[in-house]
Amino acid sequence: MHEKCGVVGVSLEDRDAARPLYYSLYALQHRGQESAGIVTHDGFQQHSHVEMGLVGDAFEQSDLEQLNGSQGIGHVRYPTAGSVNACCAQPFSVSFKSGSLGLSHNGNLVNADEVGDQLADLGHAFTSDGDTEVIAHDLARNLLEEDLVRAVKRTMSRIHGSYSLTIMHDDTVLGVRDPEGNRPLCIGELEDGYVLASESAAIDTLDGELIRDVRPGELVVLHADGTGYDTYQLVQPENTAHCFFEHVYFARPDSVIDEQLVYEVRRDLGRALWDESGIDSDVVMPVPDSGRAFASGYAEAANEDADADGVEFAEGLMKNRYVGRTFIMPTQDERERAVRLKLNPIKSTVEGKTVTLIDDSIVRGTTSNQLVELLYDAGAEEVHVRIGAPPIVAPCYMGIDMASREELIAADQSVADIRDEIGADSLAYLSIDAIAGALSKSKADLCLGCVTGEYPYDIDGEAKDREVDRPAIGTAASADD
Amino acid sequence: MHEKCGVVGVSLEDRDAARPLYYSLYALQHRGQESAGIVTHDGFQQHSHVEMGLVGDAFEQSDLEQLNGSQGIGHVRYPTAGSVNACCAQPFSVSFKSGSLGLSHNGNLVNADEVGDQLADLGHAFTSDGDTEVIAHDLARNLLEEDLVRAVKRTMSRIHGSYSLTIMHDDTVLGVRDPEGNRPLCIGELEDGYVLASESAAIDTLDGELIRDVRPGELVVLHADGTGYDTYQLVQPENTAHCFFEHVYFARPDSVIDEQLVYEVRRDLGRALWDESGIDSDVVMPVPDSGRAFASGYAEAANEDADADGVEFAEGLMKNRYVGRTFIMPTQDERERAVRLKLNPIKSTVEGKTVTLIDDSIVRGTTSNQLVELLYDAGAEEVHVRIGAPPIVAPCYMGIDMASREELIAADQSVADIRDEIGADSLAYLSIDAIAGALSKSKADLCLGCVTGEYPYDIDGEAKDREVDRPAIGTAASADD
Amino acid sequence: MHEKCGVVGVSLEDRDAARPLYYSLYALQHRGQESAGIVTHDGFQQHSHVEMGLVGDAFEQSDLEQLNGSQGIGHVRYPTAGSVNACCAQPFSVSFKSGSLGLSHNGNLVNADEVGDQLADLGHAFTSDGDTEVIAHDLARNLLEEDLVRAVKRTMSRIHGSYSLTIMHDDTVLGVRDPEGNRPLCIGELEDGYVLASESAAIDTLDGELIRDVRPGELVVLHADGTGYDTYQLVQPENTAHCFFEHVYFARPDSVIDEQLVYEVRRDLGRALWDESGIDSDVVMPVPDSGRAFASGYAEAANEDADADGVEFAEGLMKNRYVGRTFIMPTQDERERAVRLKLNPIKSTVEGKTVTLIDDSIVRGTTSNQLVELLYDAGAEEVHVRIGAPPIVAPCYMGIDMASREELIAADQSVADIRDEIGADSLAYLSIDAIAGALSKSKADLCLGCVTGEYPYDIDGEAKDREVDRPAIGTAASADD
Amino acid sequence: MHEKCGVVGVSLEDRDAARPLYYSLYALQHRGQESAGIVTHDGFQQHSHVEMGLVGDAFEQSDLEQLNGSQGIGHVRYPTAGSVNACCAQPFSVSFKSGSLGLSHNGNLVNADEVGDQLADLGHAFTSDGDTEVIAHDLARNLLEEDLVRAVKRTMSRIHGSYSLTIMHDDTVLGVRDPEGNRPLCIGELEDGYVLASESAAIDTLDGELIRDVRPGELVVLHADGTGYDTYQLVQPENTAHCFFEHVYFARPDSVIDEQLVYEVRRDLGRALWDESGIDSDVVMPVPDSGRAFASGYAEAANEDADADGVEFAEGLMKNRYVGRTFIMPTQDERERAVRLKLNPIKSTVEGKTVTLIDDSIVRGTTSNQLVELLYDAGAEEVHVRIGAPPIVAPCYMGIDMASREELIAADQSVADIRDEIGADSLAYLSIDAIAGALSKSKADLCLGCVTGEYPYDIDGEAKDREVDRPAIGTAASADD
Repeated sequence: MHEKCGVVGVSLEDRDAARPLYYSLYALQHRGQESAGIVTHDGFQQHSHVEMGLVGDAFEQSDLEQLNGSQGIGHVRYPTAGSVNACCAQPFSVSFKSGSLGLSHNGNLVNADEVGDQLADLGHAFTSDGDTEVIAHDLARNLLEEDLVRAVKRTMSRIHGSYSLTIMHDDTVLGVRDPEGNRPLCIGELEDGYVLASESAAIDTLDGELIRDVRPGELVVLHADGTGYDTYQLVQPENTAHCFFEHVYFARPDSVIDEQLVYEVRRDLGRALWDESGIDSDVVMPVPDSGRAFASGYAEAANEDADADGVEFAEGLMKNRYVGRTFIMPTQDERERAVRLKLNPIKSTVEGKTVTLIDDSIVRGTTSNQLVELLYDAGAEEVHVRIGAPPIVAPCYMGIDMASREELIAADQSVADIRDEIGADSLAYLSIDAIAGALSKSKADLCLGCVTGEYPYDIDGEAKDREVDRPAIGTAASADD
Repeated sequence: MHEKCGVVGVSLEDRDAARPLYYSLYALQHRGQESAGIVTHDGFQQHSHVEMGLVGDAFEQSDLEQLNGSQGIGHVRYPTAGSVNACCAQPFSVSFKSGSLGLSHNGNLVNADEVGDQLADLGHAFTSDGDTEVIAHDLARNLLEEDLVRAVKRTMSRIHGSYSLTIMHDDTVLGVRDPEGNRPLCIGELEDGYVLASESAAIDTLDGELIRDVRPGELVVLHADGTGYDTYQLVQPENTAHCFFEHVYFARPDSVIDEQLVYEVRRDLGRALWDESGIDSDVVMPVPDSGRAFASGYAEAANEDADADGVEFAEGLMKNRYVGRTFIMPTQDERERAVRLKLNPIKSTVEGKTVTLIDDSIVRGTTSNQLVELLYDAGAEEVHVRIGAPPIVAPCYMGIDMASREELIAADQSVADIRDEIGADSLAYLSIDAIAGALSKSKADLCLGCVTGEYPYDIDGEAKDREVDRPAIGTAASADD
Repeated sequence: MHEKCGVVGVSLEDRDAARPLYYSLYALQHRGQESAGIVTHDGFQQHSHVEMGLVGDAFEQSDLEQLNGSQGIGHVRYPTAGSVNACCAQPFSVSFKSGSLGLSHNGNLVNADEVGDQLADLGHAFTSDGDTEVIAHDLARNLLEEDLVRAVKRTMSRIHGSYSLTIMHDDTVLGVRDPEGNRPLCIGELEDGYVLASESAAIDTLDGELIRDVRPGELVVLHADGTGYDTYQLVQPENTAHCFFEHVYFARPDSVIDEQLVYEVRRDLGRALWDESGIDSDVVMPVPDSGRAFASGYAEAANEDADADGVEFAEGLMKNRYVGRTFIMPTQDERERAVRLKLNPIKSTVEGKTVTLIDDSIVRGTTSNQLVELLYDAGAEEVHVRIGAPPIVAPCYMGIDMASREELIAADQSVADIRDEIGADSLAYLSIDAIAGALSKSKADLCLGCVTGEYPYDIDGEAKDREVDRPAIGTAASADD
Repeated sequence: MHEKCGVVGVSLEDRDAARPLYYSLYALQHRGQESAGIVTHDGFQQHSHVEMGLVGDAFEQSDLEQLNGSQGIGHVRYPTAGSVNACCAQPFSVSFKSGSLGLSHNGNLVNADEVGDQLADLGHAFTSDGDTEVIAHDLARNLLEEDLVRAVKRTMSRIHGSYSLTIMHDDTVLGVRDPEGNRPLCIGELEDGYVLASESAAIDTLDGELIRDVRPGELVVLHADGTGYDTYQLVQPENTAHCFFEHVYFARPDSVIDEQLVYEVRRDLGRALWDESGIDSDVVMPVPDSGRAFASGYAEAANEDADADGVEFAEGLMKNRYVGRTFIMPTQDERERAVRLKLNPIKSTVEGKTVTLIDDSIVRGTTSNQLVELLYDAGAEEVHVRIGAPPIVAPCYMGIDMASREELIAADQSVADIRDEIGADSLAYLSIDAIAGALSKSKADLCLGCVTGEYPYDIDGEAKDREVDRPAIGTAASADD
């Protein structure tokens, strides 16, 4: 279950949490369009509304009005092929002996089956095959025997993989980030409460102030009266495994993740791209909207480069702003035209010129191929493609739905082959070192699985890029304190 | 959770079960319009489609096509106020250590909280507060330790209340009827398989033959190859507690329940009504469609009665056949006219005549009142009301959504008071003895809670009409074999 | 354009017309389910809401609220194959030099093309190919030169065919019935106004009193203040051409049409059926709901007949009350089972008995065939079919969507052939004379086209059953006064 | 009826026109989201599908399949308050004596009432109060007496105002642009046919080549076999009245209108803005997406200006890409936060800096006010606002839905007042001369009504900016040839 999702949690002093949660989910809509859900607690009971579709479609006025209570969590879920299924929409709710639990999960466990089997041995029955339900059951079980903080710690000792969680235990809202810090999670302050969210843009939307990122391995417990929060560093990781792809592609440019503004990281990556593989051309042109920050940094560096001729930054591909809505797809015959429904080249910007086209990444390569062709058709003399990330050579198991290995154009081809396949005059990717540099992190603190094929997790059939001693499940519990 | 629901299960030799299940649910649509669902198993995995709405709205062609497998169960759920909630739609599915379970439930447990608490003590977490989930978890737990038949037996020893269940454990379809036989369940044979259903009309729809009712306390296991079935009398009840209201009102007239054709029982009740409280009048007229069979029996008995003057059976109230669809309700001012949107009196049948109006039951009394007034307005000289059931004096806890005690017109009024309130010249109900007589059952074998206020079950705050030793939960398990 | 439709018009003293129109359309829903519409006038301007679907689906609360004004007309339209098209939904509205017009039409013109061509010669442009638009344009043109009554008279002199119209000219509501009185139209009185409707059941729904049928060739003008109405016998027909099928099949049983209660006519036809072709059998059984009144009259006559053995009237086929809703149709293989989804035989009523099955008519014969088979399968010894109308040998051009000639089972087969095709032991239809008798009309005053193949109208390629001098279009206008 | 709409028409050699029309409408979706429609002709008859909603929602696969024929026209309609009404969706179709007509209209007639009244005098009846129906009726009437070209010419002599039309007369597709050329219309060539469209981006989408703009007063007739076209300069205007707002705001940046690329015009306007009112600041920042081209030109000019300090062009406001979808609006209390749901300032780009914010226009001023406040909240030292168009002081009557005069912030306030109201440190608009300069047109050839209050048309209660002799309606016809 590879999910790109968004999670949020709020605790307010005196105001219903439903509307702030709703706005937060709207701010995180780019992290998931398949389903949206909110669970609140009014001190006595949970209220829940989870539905398929975009935030705006999933909730009506009356739904928000029924979601009583000043505490709550929310979730948006990414549409992954084949799983368009109401059963997996979140937050996931259960009631158990010592109260109710709601969970919103962004990430992917690598040992969900193992933990699930152990719980099944103890008699647990599951309504879905999702790893979120496994976390919920494990936590519920631990809560029978221990207090909240110890219960979370025990669960963290048993589950492995990526997880940024917002949890509601009765009316207490928690945030948990996995020890590797793979997925983002941050905490912010509102005028009358606190908020946990996948990205700081959600905090901005609520007119709040970003306090800081939740640390890898940290638990944040929001006071149920909205006046404060406690934190517990439950696991002290030796190394992290931050996902650099959040910065490259997935997160909003206006979010700050792990202390860095995504937009600035992208501009820095663009500058590095010029340094590594800059090429003189008449115009530098982004693939809108994904390549814009990269192209702006690239052009800036080019124009500052005393050895270079100077370059024009131009918007040469115009996007139909209704892209992404319902649409009857072109027939097979018309398929090559499909890209023009989305992006139209501006002839005067392209005709007779040498063009550098900048994008954030290449996954399958089909769109790049179509765009290059489009630019030649519009009269470009040369088309050079520059990519603000390294070649993606392997799938992501940690929560970004990229494609399977067979579909990845770079999985088994050299850069020269890819250049030929997309038909460009030249092609260059960014180096992994440049990524680490722009993020001010050691490579050992990044998850680079998709660009190296070596993962910081135990994944069946895949290489591991580090040695970490993990306690075996089950013995973990006794090693708790 | 008072549910009027319909359940079904089929096991076929070689044909997909989805379409037969779909037709069965359509045949049982009167038992529940809130949601509809089907779960099938293809030998390897479960397939499920559960949605809000009528059967015809809940399924599209493509949904049926995805429901692979020759085994399956289905459910239609009744809309009870306040619970219009996707979470409670059935069949309920879980996977657990030794496989998958699907459950369709018609009825209501009286000790769901108690059993649920015990399971919660063992660490179980619940996604809803429904008793069906409690049964599923209990059965799943038992299946960890015992074979299917013993596991069902142990669960039956722990749960009390009314339940007709169709269950699918992996690809094995089961039917279970509670020891009191409160809700109906029957088994039928198809050309290429077997079917379990709440009512025999569902079997007819599939061109099948009714074999017999599932006996109170009996388990039926359909062979997974569609070629046969085994039965186990897991509990041998001293007395049953059949719901007589199924015959009076709830079931289809063309169903055979506990060996009696519902339509014939209704005609017999009509005949008994003449015997007990017949009154000479010009016309006998049913409230369509619910009173038709009663009125036909009543008129027949009247015309056979040598001491009576003879009476004309006439359809004097015409029903708008679009009643039940979406409709903007009349304003408060127009409320009294509302009944005319549904039922229109035929003046020529009523004018200047003495009329006996026959219906199956009176719950709140508002419709009766409006109909009596309508008949006077249309020129009736006298209006006598005859009801084919005793006064409903108490709520149903076993699965029929009647009304709360305060809303029941007969809860605290004499028949004379009710007559005055509905404005009739005379009013008579049928006796409880007549009910028992028409059903050929001793009163001790019927659930008469709604007409006596004494229930065959332990219900908080209600009187009990019999003494039955039930094993305490937990000790039951050890008394198993 | 063969339409079975319902029309209505109201003029009230002081109350908005929208809700009464809405309830009337609900009462006439059986006359048309494809679309529903209401047009009102508040003294200054028209308000209109016309939508596809059932009345309950076509209008929301807010739609009714916007339909201001105490005068208005409404329409429900029948779904005819191939024309599921918003363009033809009614009422049809136009504005022209001397005001606004709204029209609701039930019926079918035979010279719409001719009149339309003449108007086109004068420059008229049409948005649809419907005959209602032709009437509207013709009337609008006449209103440029003449007062309302003369304008309607001139239009009536130009159009031929069947038409019951409710018209709104600015805030004046009119009712017009064609000179042959082919389709029904009646006028009723409300507490605070007057109402025109296709059937009296719509008047009942509004708690009004039926005044009388609008006479063939008559114009009724409702006063715009709701206090009265004027009538004008604009055309004095020699003979009428009432549609007997309204009584046999189309109208509600509780409507009074041309002074006769439809339900009573059907019972009389049932009695006549016994007289003409009664046969001794154990049970007489209606096809629900269409055959019920016929069967009741038939059984009554049988039991009054001293020479007969007496017969039991029994409901032996039970109808699924959800028939007519959305439903995934059975596959070809399952087609023969389709009828069981709608009607289920009660074995105990049928088994080992001789059965007389009564219905109102046979069109294609497929359902009859399936029902006969169903009864044999349920154990009937003999099945005799009796039909309360003559064989339908030709299509209807006047507004009832029956079928094309090739689809009519009786178009080119003898009764014996049909009996063989449907598999009954015997089959009898009612005579045309019996129809005329029950309706107390001479055959010359009925439209018998569908049972004789000879029509009272000029229809291309069909025989005419009478000689009527019609003024040629165009000269008609000068012959007006 | 102020409409911003998009029109299109295609004639192909051998391929169905429906899909190309569908893609064209998708490319023109920004010109109208209220309704979408396509009318085709297969040589024998018209096929039509017109529905409310976005292109993607209005059409299903089966709708396109039914739209047979190689000729067709299409329309998208802009949602103007109060007219959300299916009756006005286009293309508008009528049939009349000499065939069928379909019309798609972008623009607004100023004498629709006058022409409509004259037609009403001749007996015409109208189904809507739209000016498109008036054009259709007038043209239909002329076609009774004259050939197509003369008929169009006569209609053009009678109607005044703005109109770009695509028309289908039987299977002949026409394009007509009003003599003032107020709304855009262009013609393009496809591999197998020709296309007329409001904007050239629609032609690009079909892989076609823009041939040229349709000239003011010109008629283009596409051959019905898709192989060519004829043009007729039916009216030779002295002056045009091009709408400059198409370039500033309404059209797609990648469209070429009247020989100028919209994107380049916007960049030129940005450059002119620097020249006229440039101010030194740390960053120049567009309001996305509307201000981007202006800001890019402005920053470029600033950096080329030897006297200036240089400026950083930065994307400091990030747009939620789901803006525009269904959304529950914030409560009154939260209203000021609403803008943050759409646009989020990037603190690091703004904090401690002087900012120039660039947008295309200010209508009501509320968004500008909120954005200025947002930037101050994010730490801006100074906020200067520069607008790429003159102040809008009067409403548009020609087809752009701006606002009524009372709502326009500049209608009765000085620039200094507006600056105070929006809270900026400085505010400057672009001059009218700069607009004319960038468009390479004399002011006498532009419609400047919204920025001068003087219109090139006779509009009740508004001043006129020029003297043009227009033939009186009616006499026009005789002056035809």
